[in-house]
Amino acid sequence: MSSEFRIRGKQVIDEIADYYENLASIKPMATVEPGYLYKLLSHEVPETGESLNAIQKDIKEKIMPGMTHWQSPNFYAWFPSNTSFPAMLGDMYCGMFSIVEFNWLPVVMDALGKLIGLPERFMAIQEDGFEGDGGGVIQGGASEAMMVAMIAAREMATEKLKAQGVVEDEIVALRNSLIAYCSDQTHSAAQKAANLIGCQINVIQTASDFRLTKELLADAIAKDKQKGLIPFYVCATFGTTNTTAIDDLPGIADVAEAEGLWNHIDGAYAGAALACPEFQPLAKGIERCDSFNFNPHKWMLCNHSCCAMWVADSTHLVNAMAIQREYLPKVKKDKGFVKDYRDWQLPLGRPFRAMKLWFVLRMFGAEGIRKHIRKDVDNAKWLSEELVSDGRFELVVPVVFGLVVFRLKPSALPTHLQGSAEVENAANAAIANEINTDGRAFLLGTKLHGRDAIRVAVGSAASTRENVSELLGIIKDKTSVVLANLESN
Amino acid sequence: MSSEFRIRGKQVIDEIADYYENLASIKPMATVEPGYLYKLLSHEVPETGESLNAIQKDIKEKIMPGMTHWQSPNFYAWFPSNTSFPAMLGDMYCGMFSIVEFNWLPVVMDALGKLIGLPERFMAIQEDGFEGDGGGVIQGGASEAMMVAMIAAREMATEKLKAQGVVEDEIVALRNSLIAYCSDQTHSAAQKAANLIGCQINVIQTASDFRLTKELLADAIAKDKQKGLIPFYVCATFGTTNTTAIDDLPGIADVAEAEGLWNHIDGAYAGAALACPEFQPLAKGIERCDSFNFNPHKWMLCNHSCCAMWVADSTHLVNAMAIQREYLPKVKKDKGFVKDYRDWQLPLGRPFRAMKLWFVLRMFGAEGIRKHIRKDVDNAKWLSEELVSDGRFELVVPVVFGLVVFRLKPSALPTHLQGSAEVENAANAAIANEINTDGRAFLLGTKLHGRDAIRVAVGSAASTRENVSELLGIIKDKTSVVLANLESN
Repeated sequence: MSSEFRIRGKQVIDEIADYYENLASIKPMATVEPGYLYKLLSHEVPETGESLNAIQKDIKEKIMPGMTHWQSPNFYAWFPSNTSFPAMLGDMYCGMFSIVEFNWLPVVMDALGKLIGLPERFMAIQEDGFEGDGGGVIQGGASEAMMVAMIAAREMATEKLKAQGVVEDEIVALRNSLIAYCSDQTHSAAQKAANLIGCQINVIQTASDFRLTKELLADAIAKDKQKGLIPFYVCATFGTTNTTAIDDLPGIADVAEAEGLWNHIDGAYAGAALACPEFQPLAKGIERCDSFNFNPHKWMLCNHSCCAMWVADSTHLVNAMAIQREYLPKVKKDKGFVKDYRDWQLPLGRPFRAMKLWFVLRMFGAEGIRKHIRKDVDNAKWLSEELVSDGRFELVVPVVFGLVVFRLKPSALPTHLQGSAEVENAANAAIANEINTDGRAFLLGTKLHGRDAIRVAVGSAASTRENVSELLGIIKDKTSVVLANLESN
Repeated sequence: MSSEFRIRGKQVIDEIADYYENLASIKPMATVEPGYLYKLLSHEVPETGESLNAIQKDIKEKIMPGMTHWQSPNFYAWFPSNTSFPAMLGDMYCGMFSIVEFNWLPVVMDALGKLIGLPERFMAIQEDGFEGDGGGVIQGGASEAMMVAMIAAREMATEKLKAQGVVEDEIVALRNSLIAYCSDQTHSAAQKAANLIGCQINVIQTASDFRLTKELLADAIAKDKQKGLIPFYVCATFGTTNTTAIDDLPGIADVAEAEGLWNHIDGAYAGAALACPEFQPLAKGIERCDSFNFNPHKWMLCNHSCCAMWVADSTHLVNAMAIQREYLPKVKKDKGFVKDYRDWQLPLGRPFRAMKLWFVLRMFGAEGIRKHIRKDVDNAKWLSEELVSDGRFELVVPVVFGLVVFRLKPSALPTHLQGSAEVENAANAAIANEINTDGRAFLLGTKLHGRDAIRVAVGSAASTRENVSELLGIIKDKTSVVLANLESN
């Protein structure tokens, strides 16, 4: 069995290398209908085992032709979901050992936290060698991190009510009055978490900068308190999904501290940029939050899934999560290492993701990670400048990270069609559609406060200036096609 | 970079094969202190990248000596957490593509569902080729599955209240009266889920068979209803963690149907046995539940994490989970394939686990999977018979799957010490402790309704009759040591 694996495993290594060498030449977006796989593949378990060759044949002939290739250098949709060879090697070791291992977390998460400039209060082990109140943990994704933070926040709010002398029965009733805050640009996971844990959430409408500000938050809280609601949690964002807007983190920290809210910051995508010192000033205010998450599986070369989350004080989190059962090991108390990370997360067990992250951090080094981030930011800025200098496009927001959000200038439309929001929207949607139909690149159209825009997320690990340059040419060409069609209609 | 990966990847393949070939000779349990890794490894990201060789050196010299080897054939703690070479090959492809891909779920989950004998109501695609109301999804673990089911149950209860004409405000208040049910043998995840979503849970004390029965459930519900509580969810177990007890599934289904509860069955470990037709009659009643989960990453050779979950009707689940945002793709409506599995789970994205499962199902085939399960059950039964025929031991429960739970017979203690529950407990704990201190095997002591017992989970993928036979010898020897010590004290 292991001798067979030595042969087959090496074949797969070559398949992976071949795939990445040829990836630029494969159309990034699938054009198949939902359910196509069900029609192509057997949905019975075969009675006797099949060979790897049979499976590889299906992958090549039936699966790959219908697949969206997220790793393609021409994939600009959503946010990047970076893979890397070091992460794959790390994953192979994770699979080999397949253990539940929490000893790694302080090692890897303190290292990563320092890399992105988090202050000491988020480190598991303090400079004096003693364990701190906080630390880092790896969650499955940002949704989970946001939910875990909200659960800790609810526990904190409950404790506060108890301290005020509110009795148990009333606390249960009062929990229905708890209200969380986020903006209309916050990831939908915040709203999902509120729905799931059963509390209210005020989704605050942002202004044209798409940012949650101190004033917007303070105003919403004041109104809710008048209604008898109890504010308990705010989710700010460092780099929103739609525009990579950065919320007013210092202002939100002011309000959170004044009102006693749990202050969570979601930096799922843009958090990776904090590995570069020049981006750290943009996150001013982060040092005051209660918890922060970002996803190395997005823009830090660490295959899905790996969401890094830090909390400054794990007390409320652990109190909300801890359950004891006879078959669970009792953690040895040691002055340096008493944390039981089981109580920092939803599941009991975990795939051994810390090792994968450790491979990425060590094999790329700070230098390699920064180079990757800076390459994408440079390419995104270059693209945005080229789009502006074309004359027909305007940026919806300035480019800060790897995301370019632009639209056709209204004045670029044929004169007889100008002034109609509907035509403007349709034209932008048509450009995005033409590009994706062409198939050489895959990006997304989106709507921002009701207006259509085109969204290019530069950041595939393999993406180069040549790829982005090719995309620019496609955008220009397809825009000409759409405008010519509009002119002649 | 890819040429380097061809070399390094193949080195790692050989490392993996070497590891599995030598695994039987490595002590399964770590004897290190928490935090040992922090003292051994750097907790800074290096400025420049390091070589794979440097990392491999750390793994060999610093990490492996302190690691608990879950894949060891001498690991009998908790439940197995099987790996396999096919799963590793599948995982390599998952990492290579690293896509978010839901098209696979009907293919893989219908195949797996049929293998374990689930009826058609749980299949995504019905025999007529049309999509059904239910289907399967892959969750990160049983905790997540149990929580997702509870959320769907709460939605169903809410809808029922609405249908009864209860107004919105009252529903919010009434949700505080919702009460879930499980037994004292149910996995702690049920209680955690209740805490997290903020509802009450009645943890019913089981009798000496450790089973949740129709009568126990009906009785608890009647009492709770008198208190004004609203029963909404029951979590039954097919193979509990402590003893692999099988709850009274038909009786629980009777009560759930009569009371309108969501009936979830957790078969995290033992569900894998349902691949063998001879075990399917034990799960009678499963065909009537609302949702079921089991973990192929436990006893079905599929590396962590892979939790298979089916629901018979996804309506309430989707209603509880669905959130729409502008940047999310709208799913194309097609009469065959309209399900959006995003709304069947907590996170938005997912690692591409279906492919790993597909590799396992295809490369082992039904035959290979059944052989693996039957090997472990045979070995566990053999061990239990040998223990009984030794004369000093009694089984706490009959062996049904791969778990053997036994204790010293009270009459095996030195005469002057008999009759003391404290001494009995201490003797059993001492035997478990002696075995683990010896280090050739790793098992767990546990407590069952306050009495100490010894728990042997046979089921490591590599485990053979020779390994189990060696364990038997160790158990006998260490028991003699403990009894001799007691005699002389």
